[in-house]
Amino acid sequence: MALLVVGSIALDSVQTPFGEVRDVLGGSASYFAVAASYFAEVRMVGVIGEDFPDQGLELFRQHAIDIAGLEKRPGKTFRWKGEYNYDLNEAITLDTQLNVFQYFQPKIPLPYTQSDYVFLANIDPELQLQVLQQIPRPKLVACDTMNYWIRHKPEQLRETLRHVDLLTVNDAEARELTQEANIVKAARQVLRLGPKTVVIKRGEYGALMCNQDTWFFAPAYPLETVYDPTGAGDSFAGGMMGYLANTDNLSEETLRQGIILGSTMASFAVEAFSLNRLSRLTYGEIEQRFKAFKSLVHFEDITVGKLEGM
Amino acid sequence: MALLVVGSIALDSVQTPFGEVRDVLGGSASYFAVAASYFAEVRMVGVIGEDFPDQGLELFRQHAIDIAGLEKRPGKTFRWKGEYNYDLNEAITLDTQLNVFQYFQPKIPLPYTQSDYVFLANIDPELQLQVLQQIPRPKLVACDTMNYWIRHKPEQLRETLRHVDLLTVNDAEARELTQEANIVKAARQVLRLGPKTVVIKRGEYGALMCNQDTWFFAPAYPLETVYDPTGAGDSFAGGMMGYLANTDNLSEETLRQGIILGSTMASFAVEAFSLNRLSRLTYGEIEQRFKAFKSLVHFEDITVGKLEGM
Repeated sequence: MALLVVGSIALDSVQTPFGEVRDVLGGSASYFAVAASYFAEVRMVGVIGEDFPDQGLELFRQHAIDIAGLEKRPGKTFRWKGEYNYDLNEAITLDTQLNVFQYFQPKIPLPYTQSDYVFLANIDPELQLQVLQQIPRPKLVACDTMNYWIRHKPEQLRETLRHVDLLTVNDAEARELTQEANIVKAARQVLRLGPKTVVIKRGEYGALMCNQDTWFFAPAYPLETVYDPTGAGDSFAGGMMGYLANTDNLSEETLRQGIILGSTMASFAVEAFSLNRLSRLTYGEIEQRFKAFKSLVHFEDITVGKLEGM
Repeated sequence: MALLVVGSIALDSVQTPFGEVRDVLGGSASYFAVAASYFAEVRMVGVIGEDFPDQGLELFRQHAIDIAGLEKRPGKTFRWKGEYNYDLNEAITLDTQLNVFQYFQPKIPLPYTQSDYVFLANIDPELQLQVLQQIPRPKLVACDTMNYWIRHKPEQLRETLRHVDLLTVNDAEARELTQEANIVKAARQVLRLGPKTVVIKRGEYGALMCNQDTWFFAPAYPLETVYDPTGAGDSFAGGMMGYLANTDNLSEETLRQGIILGSTMASFAVEAFSLNRLSRLTYGEIEQRFKAFKSLVHFEDITVGKLEGM
């Protein structure tokens, strides 16, 4: 099934303890689309400036990503500059130049309006809602957001969430959105806002899915070196949604597999700057790492009653 | 097999967002022993003052804990006073009165020196080493420690670690002990200090075991209300070591089961103040929660290659 993503395409300048890059391909839609492209037919809606490098477009084409919805506008491409300290969990934004992204009004090309699977990457919730208004009957709408929108557009975000099936947020965002310190309570609260499923992304601690009364605790792959955490969350969403679109199945079991495949793609994304690792994967590598996730959490059942009267 | 624990027995005064208690039973050895008592024959070495309440001793006896190694000395019992904010991950110590614990010199009763399984709870590493010198051939020695000893007795701690098979620490302690920011590298570094296995306790994020080249990622049970996190780490160790002593098996598989049983016991411990929940469990309750851990991480394998060419 076709998978539509609407989000940012950026040129990132990033510094981590392991190096520095300038004006490299980034943005939520880029990470999402490339991660998802291994599993599904991906359609991308976003905006780039006149300075956007041909290699970026070439990379999308190599991954068979449909970029008919990629609008080129006069001006410069969105730029983000950030750094990470040794604690790689949080990005410090040094500079944001919205450029052409400032006036982004997502226009969904007619053929895209029939997309069954939709991912609304982290953009203004009003724009997210505009996207949904152009798509009559999606099977699954997933959405990401961030503290900025939770604080500055709370009403609009809540309106958007009423039309969303699955929300991905991190711990702090879930707490801020629901005003609940306990993450278990916060997750349950999210389900009252509209989404039937919430996936809480916790970086090196993995991910937690809450789905009505079911919980799923996904591990993070133990990496000795995280070169650049940028795009991990979007790569996660891309792997997960790519799998759901591929299988066209929304069972609890498929969701769980999707979350592990998402974690797999995120673990690759952070092994290099930009999309350098994520864009060069073989199915063998992906499968091997998926299986590593399986053994990472494996344990045999026990009959506790038998331990009695030792 | 018999399981020996050496640690503190305390009277705790604790305040959390959910209530307050004064002079209730606490201490690392108490939590450990009661958690382990469901699975193994537990022997306890520690010191109490003249004011230690009979109900405390009665609780140990009810759990068939051997308290022949519990020394009663003139003076008051060790007291700890602490509080937790809404972020229940970290205790704030308000007051510590060492009292009789200040002059604690663990004397291992002769029959205890034949213990096969030994847990050195968080006490001065010099005392931990003294304990080991009194026990000729244990099968497994596990040890806990804290930032205070890492900072103030680094040499003595390293000497003790050379004689330890399994170390339990939290994220911050692992980082401080090894001077490694990355927790995966930190865990590997711990293995060079002596222990063959390190278990990193991460509170609501679960636990991570590193065992030569094998990793195990254990979930935390999603609890809506954590009444009092005090003793969670020692209850975890008690469940884990109790299981290892019960099965008398040190395979990777048994260790993993032990970690889940430890997580099970920790999840009960935090559901009430003091040992109020931990000391009143049925095997049915323990088994049910163990199984919940199993379904918390369950997912089916996939053949990624089949997703190609969708």
